[in-house]
Amino acid sequence: MEKARTRISGVATRTPLLAVGEGGSRIWIKAESLQLGGAFKLRGAYNRLAQIGAERRPAGVVAFSSGNHAQGVARAARMLDMPALIVMPADAPEVKVAATRALGAGIVSYDRARESREAIAAHIAEERGAVLVPSFDDVDVIEGQGTAGLEIADQLGRAPARVIVPCGGGGLAAGIALALPNSAIVTAEPEGWDDMARSLDSGAIVEVPADAPPSACDALLSRRVSDLTFGALREAGARGVWASEAEVRAAMRFAFGMGLVVEPGGAVALAAWLAGKLPEVEGDTVIVCSGSNVDPVAFAAMLRDSA
Amino acid sequence: MEKARTRISGVATRTPLLAVGEGGSRIWIKAESLQLGGAFKLRGAYNRLAQIGAERRPAGVVAFSSGNHAQGVARAARMLDMPALIVMPADAPEVKVAATRALGAGIVSYDRARESREAIAAHIAEERGAVLVPSFDDVDVIEGQGTAGLEIADQLGRAPARVIVPCGGGGLAAGIALALPNSAIVTAEPEGWDDMARSLDSGAIVEVPADAPPSACDALLSRRVSDLTFGALREAGARGVWASEAEVRAAMRFAFGMGLVVEPGGAVALAAWLAGKLPEVEGDTVIVCSGSNVDPVAFAAMLRDSA
Repeated sequence: MEKARTRISGVATRTPLLAVGEGGSRIWIKAESLQLGGAFKLRGAYNRLAQIGAERRPAGVVAFSSGNHAQGVARAARMLDMPALIVMPADAPEVKVAATRALGAGIVSYDRARESREAIAAHIAEERGAVLVPSFDDVDVIEGQGTAGLEIADQLGRAPARVIVPCGGGGLAAGIALALPNSAIVTAEPEGWDDMARSLDSGAIVEVPADAPPSACDALLSRRVSDLTFGALREAGARGVWASEAEVRAAMRFAFGMGLVVEPGGAVALAAWLAGKLPEVEGDTVIVCSGSNVDPVAFAAMLRDSA
Repeated sequence: MEKARTRISGVATRTPLLAVGEGGSRIWIKAESLQLGGAFKLRGAYNRLAQIGAERRPAGVVAFSSGNHAQGVARAARMLDMPALIVMPADAPEVKVAATRALGAGIVSYDRARESREAIAAHIAEERGAVLVPSFDDVDVIEGQGTAGLEIADQLGRAPARVIVPCGGGGLAAGIALALPNSAIVTAEPEGWDDMARSLDSGAIVEVPADAPPSACDALLSRRVSDLTFGALREAGARGVWASEAEVRAAMRFAFGMGLVVEPGGAVALAAWLAGKLPEVEGDTVIVCSGSNVDPVAFAAMLRDSA
């Protein structure tokens, strides 16, 4: 992972580690919400793309994502002067499509109901010779995300006792688990979408049931984790917690009070901690706030509703 | 100022210096909006209060402010185990009164129309033997605020070419000017409230006219700068710019897109820069975002209106 750190040095922002409360506090927020592009995704995308050989670069990269991974890949590709195509659902939020296009990526739309994004992306990759960049099921992507964990230890001057990490597919949590082998790792997921928690409990991958409730945590609505991410977290002895939608809104409001914009999915670890779902520990607890890409109107509604 | 830095070390947050844009950018935001208490004020208040001798501490401190200085003094007093009384207008926003009270300070209300807060505070100070803590007209307060400037040079590894600083009474700008004698200092004020700019232009202190327009920048609505702050900035060769209310809202929206909550007054330097009111320079430009204490409903309205 030291190589990943070297690759992203000067590219990704070294995001701040902010104390929650006054001096002497052992509770910290790792504000990946302040990362370039508004989420941690640039770390993994850049670490993957930078390793593509010169002969394959002209054919570029392809990824599927309706959100933060799309922007991470698009930005990394622009930085490395490679073309990028992102497969996005036709009903993706216009703000996210526009942000991805503004980074110079081509957009391929698909119909969520009738087409498979995996099949479209695989077809493009084969046809063009482009490299498919998975959002979490990839060693280089996971190691790139893990650089956030290396920074935490640097910034604290020691490994924290515990890190609580928002978890969709598990790329960030797995990366941090690899970066901080002596810290307890806790994954945090939205209510009803806690498939990583259930998988860790049962010792085998469990999918999100088809009747899972809706959630504002759009960045975390992955239906299945991967062998890679699950394996790393199981190996690390990680466990999982979940937070309700109301607890997520309370966490967004708490972060607002600290001066941070955090999107719903990015606030789920803070939500679980604020809701008292984790026992106290001796030593430092680091809460990762993983993104800030929230629609302004939705953010405004959250502020008004909880006022 | 090194002594001030030592005093506030481990007390005030070392706030992040965030690049605006990708690696190689020479534009930076010093996010004092992420300071403990949501504004830079703790720096100056703590630096002043920490120098009060043991024999005067039991009588405590008194300050007048309807906003960020109130919270800075209240927090510093709590940290140093001193009583604090804050003179606040009876019509101050309930959220700011509550925040100040939550920090353990006593609140003395006054009627803005009929009473003088200066007279009330002076009376309390005399009667109790309490120390009056000015919000900007004080060498120790100014030096405390200036520690933000020392941090900027540390974080950059060099002095920036230019720093743009929100300016009310001028304490933060004067402190940064003293901390960074080789940097160009630019003060930023709301439209119609640019008395520091006019004072620097004319070479003598000019007050804000009685018919100045309303402004959302509540933290910057000081009608007169002081000999100390004006003197330090004139000596530094500073100049001033202003930003309109619409430009301030655009800057708040820009900061939101970066993941930062910034209050109107805290965004005025960013507003002036975004609006193109400053020439390009070689080297680094640091824009100070000085606070995040904004009413959630007002922030929501800003997001909706500019959506």
